[in-house]
Amino acid sequence: MQILNRRVFSLRPPFLRSHAAFYTAKAYATASSQQTHCSVTESQKREAFRQTVVNTLERRLFYIPSFKIYGGVTGLYDYGPPGCAVKANVLALWRQHFVLEENMLEVDCPCVTPELVLKASGHVEKFTDLMVKDEKTGTCYRADHLIKDYCRDNLEKDPNLSAEKKAELTRVLAVLDDLSVHELGVMIKNYGITAPDTKNALSDPYPFNLMFQTSIGPSGSIPGYLRPETAQGIFVNFKDLYYYNGNKLPFAAAQIGQAFRNEISPRQGLLRVREFTLAEIEHFVDPDDKSHPKFSEVSELEPFMFSREDQVFGRPANKISIGELISKGIVNNETLGYFIGRVYLFLTRLGIDESRLRFRQHLGNEMAHYAADCWDAEIESSYGWIECVGIADRSAFDLQAHTEKSGVPLVAYEKFTEPRIVEKLVITLDKRELGLAFKGDQKMVVEALEEMDENEAMIMKVTLEAMGEADLHVFALDKVVVIKKNMVSISKEKKKEHQRVFTPSVIEPSFGIGRILYCLYEHSFYTRPSKDGDEQLNVFRFPPLVAPIKCAVFPIVQNQHYNETAERISKSLTALGISYKIDTTAEFSHYAGTSIGKRYARTDELGVPLAITVDSLSSVTVRERDSKQQIRVYVDEVASVVKEMIEGVSTWTDLLGRYPNPSS
Amino acid sequence: MQILNRRVFSLRPPFLRSHAAFYTAKAYATASSQQTHCSVTESQKREAFRQTVVNTLERRLFYIPSFKIYGGVTGLYDYGPPGCAVKANVLALWRQHFVLEENMLEVDCPCVTPELVLKASGHVEKFTDLMVKDEKTGTCYRADHLIKDYCRDNLEKDPNLSAEKKAELTRVLAVLDDLSVHELGVMIKNYGITAPDTKNALSDPYPFNLMFQTSIGPSGSIPGYLRPETAQGIFVNFKDLYYYNGNKLPFAAAQIGQAFRNEISPRQGLLRVREFTLAEIEHFVDPDDKSHPKFSEVSELEPFMFSREDQVFGRPANKISIGELISKGIVNNETLGYFIGRVYLFLTRLGIDESRLRFRQHLGNEMAHYAADCWDAEIESSYGWIECVGIADRSAFDLQAHTEKSGVPLVAYEKFTEPRIVEKLVITLDKRELGLAFKGDQKMVVEALEEMDENEAMIMKVTLEAMGEADLHVFALDKVVVIKKNMVSISKEKKKEHQRVFTPSVIEPSFGIGRILYCLYEHSFYTRPSKDGDEQLNVFRFPPLVAPIKCAVFPIVQNQHYNETAERISKSLTALGISYKIDTTAEFSHYAGTSIGKRYARTDELGVPLAITVDSLSSVTVRERDSKQQIRVYVDEVASVVKEMIEGVSTWTDLLGRYPNPSS
Repeated sequence: MQILNRRVFSLRPPFLRSHAAFYTAKAYATASSQQTHCSVTESQKREAFRQTVVNTLERRLFYIPSFKIYGGVTGLYDYGPPGCAVKANVLALWRQHFVLEENMLEVDCPCVTPELVLKASGHVEKFTDLMVKDEKTGTCYRADHLIKDYCRDNLEKDPNLSAEKKAELTRVLAVLDDLSVHELGVMIKNYGITAPDTKNALSDPYPFNLMFQTSIGPSGSIPGYLRPETAQGIFVNFKDLYYYNGNKLPFAAAQIGQAFRNEISPRQGLLRVREFTLAEIEHFVDPDDKSHPKFSEVSELEPFMFSREDQVFGRPANKISIGELISKGIVNNETLGYFIGRVYLFLTRLGIDESRLRFRQHLGNEMAHYAADCWDAEIESSYGWIECVGIADRSAFDLQAHTEKSGVPLVAYEKFTEPRIVEKLVITLDKRELGLAFKGDQKMVVEALEEMDENEAMIMKVTLEAMGEADLHVFALDKVVVIKKNMVSISKEKKKEHQRVFTPSVIEPSFGIGRILYCLYEHSFYTRPSKDGDEQLNVFRFPPLVAPIKCAVFPIVQNQHYNETAERISKSLTALGISYKIDTTAEFSHYAGTSIGKRYARTDELGVPLAITVDSLSSVTVRERDSKQQIRVYVDEVASVVKEMIEGVSTWTDLLGRYPNPSS
Repeated sequence: MQILNRRVFSLRPPFLRSHAAFYTAKAYATASSQQTHCSVTESQKREAFRQTVVNTLERRLFYIPSFKIYGGVTGLYDYGPPGCAVKANVLALWRQHFVLEENMLEVDCPCVTPELVLKASGHVEKFTDLMVKDEKTGTCYRADHLIKDYCRDNLEKDPNLSAEKKAELTRVLAVLDDLSVHELGVMIKNYGITAPDTKNALSDPYPFNLMFQTSIGPSGSIPGYLRPETAQGIFVNFKDLYYYNGNKLPFAAAQIGQAFRNEISPRQGLLRVREFTLAEIEHFVDPDDKSHPKFSEVSELEPFMFSREDQVFGRPANKISIGELISKGIVNNETLGYFIGRVYLFLTRLGIDESRLRFRQHLGNEMAHYAADCWDAEIESSYGWIECVGIADRSAFDLQAHTEKSGVPLVAYEKFTEPRIVEKLVITLDKRELGLAFKGDQKMVVEALEEMDENEAMIMKVTLEAMGEADLHVFALDKVVVIKKNMVSISKEKKKEHQRVFTPSVIEPSFGIGRILYCLYEHSFYTRPSKDGDEQLNVFRFPPLVAPIKCAVFPIVQNQHYNETAERISKSLTALGISYKIDTTAEFSHYAGTSIGKRYARTDELGVPLAITVDSLSSVTVRERDSKQQIRVYVDEVASVVKEMIEGVSTWTDLLGRYPNPSS
């Protein structure tokens, strides 16, 4: 697979940023390279599969294009009832798996954010994509998208393309994310790319900030944005959260909430949207000790790992234990490894196919300069590999940025049990002598002297003692000046210290909930022929935990007694907190046989794990979605049997052993 | 109590609107009238109580002013760890109590909303407050706030105020919300009100739209807003949701999400904020049948009800059963009554004191013209009575508005089992004759004829038959014209109809989650003296369901064995899904007595219901927060005992009977 660099400054874990761009590029690259390897049929099959899934999702209201009756708005989607329930279940599991089990501090901050905060984080300056405009109509396009489309179209549709041209376009696709604004502009001109809809000329590319802008308060004097991520709300609260945690490290804070990105031209349906739910964790840790007390609990897990080295040498991702990754130094530290393990457990518990889940390490040039190591949980879908969780060791960058801009020190303290004697370098300047020697340049020289690190100062000390003078490169003046012995004295002094003050490192697992949901839909979906074989029926094999509705209740015929029994069962399900759907569709009552089959098909399509058919007044048939096997259970017992299986206390196999099977 | 009208067009249930304004006015009015009755001490006591609660909430991070390190932004708050947990618990209960138990269709729509949708709903035109500007600095103020402050200040601080002036200012406070823009402007001029901070002159008042504005997409061509409520997302999806529900009425849809209001000058801390969480239900029902199948389940509940009549005649709210309210016609219909009952059960289950909860009916002039009936759940706090839930029968208004603007009919169908024969009025016009008679006015005359309702048409028919001609008032022409027999024929014809097409009514319970939380904090808070009586300790008496953390674990001394036992207990709590806080503060280990007391105090202040003190390796002490009573439980059993009580399976009294009490 071709590895791409990322053009845009990595502000945040990738999918919060140009990441989507990065992914798209990769996906296209993968797709086009695949098309040279695999038959067109393979790509068409993927496309057809996606269409079936998406049609089912839309028809059953897992999601709905927002404001549809007004023509909709690109990149905005509603979750309809089953989608909303699946999302709530996934978030509940996230809270249980991360917040509760790890004793994290959950916070909830506003979406509306003043500009100051996002200036400090770098978003105001750098959270951009490059855009071009149709010079006549003003319609906007992403510059890289147009070039990508141009290359793909030519590669796919022009049979007379020379080998040379083919190689060139393939190379362009590979390096697209590394090109500068200027280079993109030149490329658009050279290839004669015009606006897709009108064929009009295009403007030069220029950066467009992806944040939705607004204004806080009535006077318009406080510029604000909708947050592009939830993480900043945690960073600005670090001081209070550290105090709340008893001034102890490590600890993690978490937040679930909406984030916003005003995409230039959203594509890829649910994967690239303008408003989305993020679940983010900021785990604060002493940079000198990134071990994790619970590391042993994940060390034997073996997810597919796609290390930097594997990528560079063109090797595939491979299964390797997290313990080994740490001992070999492939993953930077235990805490990062621990979260890779926890993310793996979370995703597979949801129903993500572990053979289509990999952790891909960022290449050196994908990572921001300050990042220690980053791994993305990528899930394979019909669009290719989708980054769904970013797990990054961002070192002290975020806390330092906010310390600097706010003036509030976001630091941690390590109190020593005994005070420690440390040697400190002391540089004493004779300002009068420096003034006489350097006059107007004095300020810059003084700054250069004060900014010397320990090593530089020790060299100067030795030089001054040996030679009586030493050279000093003053960058601000762009010249070398001569420092004399009478101008500065450098010494080491012993000092008592009672504590160590430091900026914690932060390890950030960041979950794109919408992307996880979409991949989960694809991994859970399958079709099977109907009983009489004349149509394909759709099924979502959601685990009970995730299923939007846990159980269906069908009276087999429309009859007061059966309806009353169904009602009684419904009440006991509600009392146990189990969501259900009751279907008393009257029109099928004459054709009991067909009717039940059709009703099963309707609930299978929603991924409902169990269906209760009320076919007598004392006992009922319980049918499992995937095996289609059935058991008979007494009416009074059925709600608790459903609960047992939904909560994972018993498996279907357990139940099959305990209850009679009517068809056997 | 003085009853006020509301100035601003009631777009939505009150607290989504100027409502806050309405409430504030009422609160002030109440407060000022109280000050003539009660001693100043009473008002000071309320203020002092509020300060203690708010200090505790801020110190323990129930909430935090957002972006505090940057100086904060008025009207934006973060929920810190305990606040976030309480909120999550309240929302989980809401989902259980409403969505699950009532089989509602939950949806999740974006915050970013295109202008078109909010034009249809009326928000673009009418979601405004009246604002004045400092003419020199441009600082903005709410016009009504300034007048309120002026009146209150004079009433409270001027001992020489004449009886006449007193009466005038009291009257102004009472009618403030009914005044027009012009009247407010005149009042500001007449009273010589200036900008509070600078004493500069003020501009005339003008309407300021309270929605945060933004722009969707890169070209700036799609104006958008942050939604001021979640309800519109449900209305625009009515057609799909009705289909999803098998084209059956009644059904309810629900949504939990963020809403935004760019307040001119937020006051009252957590009660008036610029971003808040709403939980809204839209229950769609046949306007001809607003009965509710589960009404009997609430009919015997007796909340405090404050009917229109009670308010008008100055009678206090009184306890009355919901059944009686319906049978006496005080509440408009069963469905509205059912929701009043369900809201009452929800709020009291959370821990709201039912003696400080009332349902207040809107007065005729508070309601929008289309509303059939509205009741607000108001909770008494140190600020006065706060509207926390609005329950409104909004008739067909919202669906009709979106039908009209989108062109998509948002209607329901009632299929008849047998086709029905109905008489329909048919008006046939002779356009030639009309044209000859009215020439240029013909169009307006034709429209007037076509718009006649059945009654008008029948009168014309009779008149034409009797007299040969009839008068017609054409409003568009502002004159009466004479219609002759040869111009129009009016008849009744029989038609077969297979179904009835109608716009459903919507009954909307709408919950301001932040306000409910704040009132819950006040109702749950109390203080009690410490053991040695030298300080007052704070306690939140949250029910276990709501408590942010369910249980604390304290090893009595710092010792490996005790710590290991505490760790074992923690693991079993996690396995049962119970949140806990472990406190192994080392510095107290030498003074075990004091230490435990202090640790209890710290967790009481977070409202943690149970504390487990690890004081032996085989059994532990479990202490209940409010009674401070203790029981001894075996280590292996303790997690399940905690779970029993947290989930309401056993009460503390049950446990006291079952386990030994060490202090007895």
